[in-house]
Amino acid sequence: MSEKVFSHIDDHIDDAIDDLAEFCSIPSVATKGENMLDAANLVKSWLESLGLETALHETSGWPVVTGEMDVGAKRTLLFYNHYDVQPAEPFDLWKSPPFELSRRNGRLYARGVADNKGDIVTRIWALKALIESDVEIPVNIKFVIEGEEEIGSPHLHEFVRKNEDFIKADGGIWEFGGSGIDDRQEAWLGLKGLLYVQLEVKKLKMDSHSANACVLPSAPYRLVWALNSLKNEDGKILIKGFYDDVNTLSNAELEIIRNIELYEDDVKEYYEIDQFVNGLEGHELQIEFYNGPTCNICGIGSGWQGEGSKTVLPAEAMVKVDFRLVESMDPNDILSKLQNHFDSEGFSDIEIAWHDGYPAAKTPVDHPFVEVVNTANKRVFGHDITIHPTNPGSGPLYLFKDHVPMVSIGCSDFYSRAHSPNETIKIENFSKSIKRIIVLIEEMTASFD
Amino acid sequence: MSEKVFSHIDDHIDDAIDDLAEFCSIPSVATKGENMLDAANLVKSWLESLGLETALHETSGWPVVTGEMDVGAKRTLLFYNHYDVQPAEPFDLWKSPPFELSRRNGRLYARGVADNKGDIVTRIWALKALIESDVEIPVNIKFVIEGEEEIGSPHLHEFVRKNEDFIKADGGIWEFGGSGIDDRQEAWLGLKGLLYVQLEVKKLKMDSHSANACVLPSAPYRLVWALNSLKNEDGKILIKGFYDDVNTLSNAELEIIRNIELYEDDVKEYYEIDQFVNGLEGHELQIEFYNGPTCNICGIGSGWQGEGSKTVLPAEAMVKVDFRLVESMDPNDILSKLQNHFDSEGFSDIEIAWHDGYPAAKTPVDHPFVEVVNTANKRVFGHDITIHPTNPGSGPLYLFKDHVPMVSIGCSDFYSRAHSPNETIKIENFSKSIKRIIVLIEEMTASFD
Repeated sequence: MSEKVFSHIDDHIDDAIDDLAEFCSIPSVATKGENMLDAANLVKSWLESLGLETALHETSGWPVVTGEMDVGAKRTLLFYNHYDVQPAEPFDLWKSPPFELSRRNGRLYARGVADNKGDIVTRIWALKALIESDVEIPVNIKFVIEGEEEIGSPHLHEFVRKNEDFIKADGGIWEFGGSGIDDRQEAWLGLKGLLYVQLEVKKLKMDSHSANACVLPSAPYRLVWALNSLKNEDGKILIKGFYDDVNTLSNAELEIIRNIELYEDDVKEYYEIDQFVNGLEGHELQIEFYNGPTCNICGIGSGWQGEGSKTVLPAEAMVKVDFRLVESMDPNDILSKLQNHFDSEGFSDIEIAWHDGYPAAKTPVDHPFVEVVNTANKRVFGHDITIHPTNPGSGPLYLFKDHVPMVSIGCSDFYSRAHSPNETIKIENFSKSIKRIIVLIEEMTASFD
Repeated sequence: MSEKVFSHIDDHIDDAIDDLAEFCSIPSVATKGENMLDAANLVKSWLESLGLETALHETSGWPVVTGEMDVGAKRTLLFYNHYDVQPAEPFDLWKSPPFELSRRNGRLYARGVADNKGDIVTRIWALKALIESDVEIPVNIKFVIEGEEEIGSPHLHEFVRKNEDFIKADGGIWEFGGSGIDDRQEAWLGLKGLLYVQLEVKKLKMDSHSANACVLPSAPYRLVWALNSLKNEDGKILIKGFYDDVNTLSNAELEIIRNIELYEDDVKEYYEIDQFVNGLEGHELQIEFYNGPTCNICGIGSGWQGEGSKTVLPAEAMVKVDFRLVESMDPNDILSKLQNHFDSEGFSDIEIAWHDGYPAAKTPVDHPFVEVVNTANKRVFGHDITIHPTNPGSGPLYLFKDHVPMVSIGCSDFYSRAHSPNETIKIENFSKSIKRIIVLIEEMTASFD
């Protein structure tokens, strides 16, 4: 079936890019909460136009779009995606406006092309191409497209709790993925967990003249000392009991990662760094990449940040910290350990203003669906997919893991700059990703269990 | 002579406030470099209209306005002021627009009313009232009004080097001052020195997804560790040799400060704090206030500071730190000790992007001009002025100290919020400050040496 459909895709790739451009023109930044329903309704209308039964599921946050095509097949394929994107700031670093898709040198640029509006369009276009080529779709299809992934999916559990049957499937494709620095396609079988906290400290009723720093307390310095108490210069996280529940990697996982090339020198060159955190390299670097929890400053702010000098003692200071958690770590447990840390280390003036999070989850590396994905990949990209036991990033995979074996693949590549200015994908990968979904649908009919 | 002139002031106080309103409507924020010449020219035109010989002295930065009225008298009185102001941010905390003078409950509100456009207007209006009341001015008058005080007076030395004769005088009134929390007038005889640095660190060529924090270095965390290495939680500054040149207070100074009431409880209530830095109180708090050097974060920034969450590993981080220096500390020496600290403590990745500063200076507490100021104060405010050996703030007093004994008094009060939103002065103090200058001019003719 593939050849006819592949030609259809080649003939209509500009139409698919136009759809992506329309999608990216909606600045559906979940953390700002603007334009969210426009994005949800566009996706819903696309699914509807392909004949799927769609719904907009209300949650306490932004709604979840679902689509279902029940062809009465034995097997079901589920797609998980999200219609929200990261903020595009800092705008001045973008070479073209973040919410206007721009095409340069075989690449597409816009906030969301890589994470993950491009992937949504490839999956919808795979179905569209099959339908428009009059090919019968041989598996049942389901879509779950939420609107809060980039803010930690705080309400997706509400949808899942009410729709456990809906998310049961024989195989699932997670939102993102693509090629590594070696241009080989990668499949991610797991995601780390996340605890995101905003810490705030207020030491004075109002800002004061900095001359008074000799006698008045400093909010930003309190925050510096508190952050210093959380992690030392060697990268060791100092919260009592933080590492207690960290699962070590299984032998199967260790065997797989030993064969993965991390291309250390290329990555160093790309980021212009001399060495990785704490001088890690080789297998130790791999262990950290796949199984290292983190304590990271996403943003910090206090006082005068404009040009030149202002001599002020700021009344308040704020920091946003994300902890990536690995298998078996519980975000609620880590949150209470963080609070205990502040209380016992003399930082009870540091307030955890708000928090969010979820645990890690992984699909077993030996699950048969993984091989189905690999076969589909090989037929389109011509090489075995690199299997990663987990991605260092996060997502609400834990909500799905008991119902469907999930594998994350997508249309990005190493240079895609997800979450950063000038987010981009290759047109070639965008096109091949549509084709890979088509082949995957075909391969799903083969026997696997 | 005073009574007639005092009536003139009482009759025309609204005109003086109108002048202040016009001055404050010019947002002469030196650190932004906007509207600077408008402010300089307004001041110059006022001095000219009173018959002073004026000049605009070019420097590598904003020009210095001078005015001179040589009446052939034995004594000369010099005023030092500045026509620049601090930035008004954060704007949303102002109850009325910062660059529109607002009058509420006997007070005036605008950026600069307290620091120090109000003081400039009181001094010019003292002369104006004398002239308009046909009173002969019995001392020679000089004005030095610069435009870069709020950014550390980086070019004033150029003016002073070329005009050492001009700044010689029998007495000098420094830019600012007012009443304390007890509503008693205060005179400041010295100023601390200043070293202002902007520290920057860049660890990655571009921002990365925060998932990569397990292996990629963090710029904001590097800055946290570097700042932590500069000062410990007890407030002790850890730069090697930082305290080496700190002069202890003289016996005369110690005697004076023992009699100064710092109104600790009222200050605590005002700022809503439980205790002062490191739990200091009483004489130890006084010593720190008058002779404590500082290491203070004026502003820090990195990554996502907007609403909600963004999971990013920021490429860069920046902090603005001001060190207040006490007598005998050399800002260049402290700068090189700071650089040595970073080099020897493993923080050579922290760049001192720019810096500025000057040393401390003090007029001796037993200089006879101090008593002249006190006499003038007593005649207008009815009480002895509180003599402070130094202010904890800074200014380029060191450029003047070999040429003129300087005393700092002004129209502010404890609640003036210099450098902060809702900067304000009392109309009563504004009016009395004009009168105090008039009496001071009269008292200058008495014998003192």
